[in-house]
Amino acid sequence: MSNWIEALKKEIPEGQIMTELADRYSYSFDASFGEYLPDVVVQAKNKQEVVYIVKVANQFGIPIYPRGQGTCLSGGPLPVYGGMVLDLSQWPEQITLNVEDLTINVSPSVLTARINEEAEKHGLMYAPDPSSAHVATIGGNLAENSGGPRGLKYGVTKDFVIGLELVTPEGEVIRTGGQTIKNVTGFDLTKLIVGSEGTLGVITEATLKLIPKPPAVQTIMVEFDHVRTAGQAISRTLTSGILPSKMEFMDQACIQAVENFKPSGLPVDAKAIVIIELDGHPQTLDVETKLVQNIMSSIGATNLIIPKTKEEADKIWHARKQVSPAIAKIKPTKVSEDATVPRSKIPEMMDRLHDIKNKYNVEVVVFGHAGDGNLHPNILCDKRDQEEMGRVEQAVEEVFQAAIDLGGTLSGEHGIGTMKAPFMEKELGEVGLDMMKRIKDSWDPNGIMNPGKIFPEKGQKLVLTDE
Amino acid sequence: MSNWIEALKKEIPEGQIMTELADRYSYSFDASFGEYLPDVVVQAKNKQEVVYIVKVANQFGIPIYPRGQGTCLSGGPLPVYGGMVLDLSQWPEQITLNVEDLTINVSPSVLTARINEEAEKHGLMYAPDPSSAHVATIGGNLAENSGGPRGLKYGVTKDFVIGLELVTPEGEVIRTGGQTIKNVTGFDLTKLIVGSEGTLGVITEATLKLIPKPPAVQTIMVEFDHVRTAGQAISRTLTSGILPSKMEFMDQACIQAVENFKPSGLPVDAKAIVIIELDGHPQTLDVETKLVQNIMSSIGATNLIIPKTKEEADKIWHARKQVSPAIAKIKPTKVSEDATVPRSKIPEMMDRLHDIKNKYNVEVVVFGHAGDGNLHPNILCDKRDQEEMGRVEQAVEEVFQAAIDLGGTLSGEHGIGTMKAPFMEKELGEVGLDMMKRIKDSWDPNGIMNPGKIFPEKGQKLVLTDE
Repeated sequence: MSNWIEALKKEIPEGQIMTELADRYSYSFDASFGEYLPDVVVQAKNKQEVVYIVKVANQFGIPIYPRGQGTCLSGGPLPVYGGMVLDLSQWPEQITLNVEDLTINVSPSVLTARINEEAEKHGLMYAPDPSSAHVATIGGNLAENSGGPRGLKYGVTKDFVIGLELVTPEGEVIRTGGQTIKNVTGFDLTKLIVGSEGTLGVITEATLKLIPKPPAVQTIMVEFDHVRTAGQAISRTLTSGILPSKMEFMDQACIQAVENFKPSGLPVDAKAIVIIELDGHPQTLDVETKLVQNIMSSIGATNLIIPKTKEEADKIWHARKQVSPAIAKIKPTKVSEDATVPRSKIPEMMDRLHDIKNKYNVEVVVFGHAGDGNLHPNILCDKRDQEEMGRVEQAVEEVFQAAIDLGGTLSGEHGIGTMKAPFMEKELGEVGLDMMKRIKDSWDPNGIMNPGKIFPEKGQKLVLTDE
Repeated sequence: MSNWIEALKKEIPEGQIMTELADRYSYSFDASFGEYLPDVVVQAKNKQEVVYIVKVANQFGIPIYPRGQGTCLSGGPLPVYGGMVLDLSQWPEQITLNVEDLTINVSPSVLTARINEEAEKHGLMYAPDPSSAHVATIGGNLAENSGGPRGLKYGVTKDFVIGLELVTPEGEVIRTGGQTIKNVTGFDLTKLIVGSEGTLGVITEATLKLIPKPPAVQTIMVEFDHVRTAGQAISRTLTSGILPSKMEFMDQACIQAVENFKPSGLPVDAKAIVIIELDGHPQTLDVETKLVQNIMSSIGATNLIIPKTKEEADKIWHARKQVSPAIAKIKPTKVSEDATVPRSKIPEMMDRLHDIKNKYNVEVVVFGHAGDGNLHPNILCDKRDQEEMGRVEQAVEEVFQAAIDLGGTLSGEHGIGTMKAPFMEKELGEVGLDMMKRIKDSWDPNGIMNPGKIFPEKGQKLVLTDE
């Protein structure tokens, strides 16, 4: 057995160190593409254990790959260079709500949905609502800066984090930010760490901001006979003075996939639907609902449905949540993207995706948080089919290029991880990427924190085929 | 003449380089404490000039101090080690509004109030509203991450920046973020740079996010016969389900100062007032106004005024804006602080400030954005009185200590600059401060960007007396 595993055993309870192949295999993948076997899996249940593990990793030069529930869509927790997966999901749940401060302190293992549950008990809301909220940990959300439908009005994970406790890549404990809403004391390390995909340390606690829960919500589902019209409807709504809490898009392929998977009453003949949620006082919702109706009718929507009960509305949102599992049933492999464009460019991006689909003869379905320009084109394929995967690789590259051409970005909410690393320089330029790398190197001189992510290797290319 | 000034003259027009004592003196101070004479003042009017100037500074090892309109309250633009002040205020105003994207691109010299003016023409709003908005540049706001009353509901400058163009400390041009609302492509350099007080480069362009302008606003002024009750009123309102756009506090000394300076009809007998602004649809405002009335009457407010016209409301807000100039008339020197605490600790912080005032026999007036815990205790004194200033130094230290003891922070919105640098380690710890310094050193190996700010010199202490 390796010296470093022996070193781990000195301080970490035996039951938290796994070296059996079956265990290691369970930690070799996430919800993205690719499998990498770690040498060992270590579970940490408190800060002191994390400090010890990180110090051992530095001493022996072993990569550490922090992991929550492994729902990442960009390969964040994948142990691409072996070493150890640091499993934080078994950390005992700690949640402390400070009602008068409108803040909540959480341990990394807390499931994201739990935070909002606690907040709602006091009329408060934790706004970020990634689709995986019921199965993903807040630690993973922090590492990846997760988004979600409500991001349109309220912002993403980062916008709700005011303080962190972090074990640095050298095993020191620091606190960033604090318990106050406003803080300009030095560099904003909090917002640097959130979204750094576990490359700058291990988050061991977070202080999150809460807001008053809006007293009411109103769902509206709008149907279109052209994808482009749906795109225009989004722009028109957002420049009308209304800021909906959610504005979700599904194309016909998604609608049909959901109806085949679990019939939910979605309109299978529509070319696209946009599902809107307004929130606020009931009186305001009446006014805004009428305004949305006027906009949609003037722009040529084919139908508009206003659910009469909470159950009807929930059914629509449940159908929206079924998109990912539903499309995963169509073909064995799903390559999920989250290229994001300025809002005005949504119709053009829709056109580009249509062209890419035809050019490479690949199956592309599109849904997403269209209100903030964050689309999720998904390519459905079979990773055992090398020829098809070659076409998928080219299609993915062209999706990224389209986003960048339209003034957009490689990733709106899933992160860079392994798959998008080769395209970083295209978006950031050589110097832009170098400035990020300088931070990484200055914080992690031994390069042990989640190596192989964000920063491309020399000459690294997108590879979706098995070697 | 120095070689480096000769080098500047090769590419920078003669009229933009000032070496006369009178000119240099004009750039030796800001709205904070202290005076430092630069060797030269250089005005840059475009990106290429900035690149050239920064490269010369690196070649000769000369400090650069970027500056907008010099309204900084923490010494951000002060040339503490001489060298050159880089004046960006003469850069031609460039404003490009992208209505459908809900974004606006601006040059660093644009006055902050201009941005909202442009946005309002299209029913949009740029929410950050520092009190200096009509005289300060957005470049300065970005460097300091300025706040303002509306921060309570909408957040501060940082929350509205989605992309930057930056000349790095070595004179390279990078773009961070972009034109999209969501972006998780690599580290968040945008939010690292905003608020870094000009220590990480020179911002040459920014893309800002806009939101729909709320259709109506409602002002409410509430009077209290105890400062502590005012603090409780704030907590109670924020946990009642209402998120006002503004919630400003003024103590009796501020009220009286304003009335002496420019009578505005404020209640001079009240021990404190809280001025609230609600925004949203008119129907919502009616509901929320009634709710605020109930809260205030149940908590024991002595009076509540609801202005009937826009003019009456404007008069109240104008009075609030007069606080800084009004208190500056009381004594020759004003030491403005912005120590910030968790919201629930506002009443306790009020008590601590009261004790500090008595203990050191100094004149302290308090106002601020109490809704987010961001108070502005101001110590009024005379910097020529060495004995008094000695007491002021001790009082300021104790204000910082009180904020930290209560789980707060040294600075909520003014920045660290020169004056608070000695207290950084107290809040951040040695390692926390070191992690910031690593970033600074990796970006600015020659240490030419705004040296003497944020990071304390070895053994540096607060000194408010002239040597």
